[in-house]
Amino acid sequence: MDLYFSPLACSMATRIVLNEAGADATFIEVDPHTKTLLEDGSDYRRINPLGLVPALRTDHGEVLTENIAVLHHVASRVGNDLIPSDPAELTRLHQWLSFISSELHTRLFSGLFDPNAPEAVRSRGLEKSAVRLARLDEHLADRDYLVGDDFTIADAYLITVLNWIQATPIDLTPWPAVRAYLERGRERPSVKGAIAVELPLYREERARSA
Amino acid sequence: MDLYFSPLACSMATRIVLNEAGADATFIEVDPHTKTLLEDGSDYRRINPLGLVPALRTDHGEVLTENIAVLHHVASRVGNDLIPSDPAELTRLHQWLSFISSELHTRLFSGLFDPNAPEAVRSRGLEKSAVRLARLDEHLADRDYLVGDDFTIADAYLITVLNWIQATPIDLTPWPAVRAYLERGRERPSVKGAIAVELPLYREERARSA
Repeated sequence: MDLYFSPLACSMATRIVLNEAGADATFIEVDPHTKTLLEDGSDYRRINPLGLVPALRTDHGEVLTENIAVLHHVASRVGNDLIPSDPAELTRLHQWLSFISSELHTRLFSGLFDPNAPEAVRSRGLEKSAVRLARLDEHLADRDYLVGDDFTIADAYLITVLNWIQATPIDLTPWPAVRAYLERGRERPSVKGAIAVELPLYREERARSA
Repeated sequence: MDLYFSPLACSMATRIVLNEAGADATFIEVDPHTKTLLEDGSDYRRINPLGLVPALRTDHGEVLTENIAVLHHVASRVGNDLIPSDPAELTRLHQWLSFISSELHTRLFSGLFDPNAPEAVRSRGLEKSAVRLARLDEHLADRDYLVGDDFTIADAYLITVLNWIQATPIDLTPWPAVRAYLERGRERPSVKGAIAVELPLYREERARSA
């Protein structure tokens, strides 16, 4: 499997899933500003026309895009204990993956991190964040994980996304369960290992684009 | 099953899925402007704190939110031939559901249809639409359905979302495969039946909010 990733981007969720399973993949770094591959400067849009990471080239040569699909595929390949088998829990997994992807990642953070977005896009994203973080806080108040009693691909994705908050004006003080969840998550070995690899690459990326 | 819906909103995808199976549910209409239930004026945010449709109360009394989760649950309940069983096709289903939800619905249309969004949010959404519609057009050029050879829950969702284009400045002329797909979709009995029920309700909703 070839995973096209950018440091600390949502593709880090797949690295966490691989770490959980002790599995590996070939990681190919994409510069998110130039949309080129670091290794040879070629155009990443030839892999994913939207220019977004992750993309995954499977062992059958098929290119998958969309984080949720990549997470499902990789978790199934490396041992599927990160995807619940109980149908009711699987439905809850779909719900939380979709919430993270649509409500947090796209609606909230994509606007905040879009360097070409007008200020109004950023402030509208922030306005929308409170009800979403409140929803999450209520859900996490009496739970260690998003779905059921175990870590799933939804936790890998949520921790990755919440980790971005430190680069935003959002203060988690009103949502203590979210903050505690993120703090626990960052201490998890699979997450700690992923950040240890990607944070230095992220700093290099920032230095290149500066 | 109780389905909380608003006319022609993304909840219509679930009505299409029910129509495909000849199945039924209790439909409870939500006014999208006041976020109240039409039947008694009560606050819909007590069902879904985000105020978004659909929400589904399952026969076990659990409330599900997020369209993708509702579609999975309903399709599984009424006969799952709208969800492929082949693992590779299931991964492609995840990919396209996520693309529709994040890239089309949330990133493009949510901004266009948000009455409180600044103009910059709308124009940024339109700027982002071309590459996404081009991606879809390329994929649909030689296919009748999004995934495999049969209609799936992803088609129910995509037709519902593309049907909104008539209320936007987007012209589908540069994307003939998308336009043809939408025209075919609108003629499908399950879709035609859903629109026949929801269009009059939509007009009533517009008249109320005017």
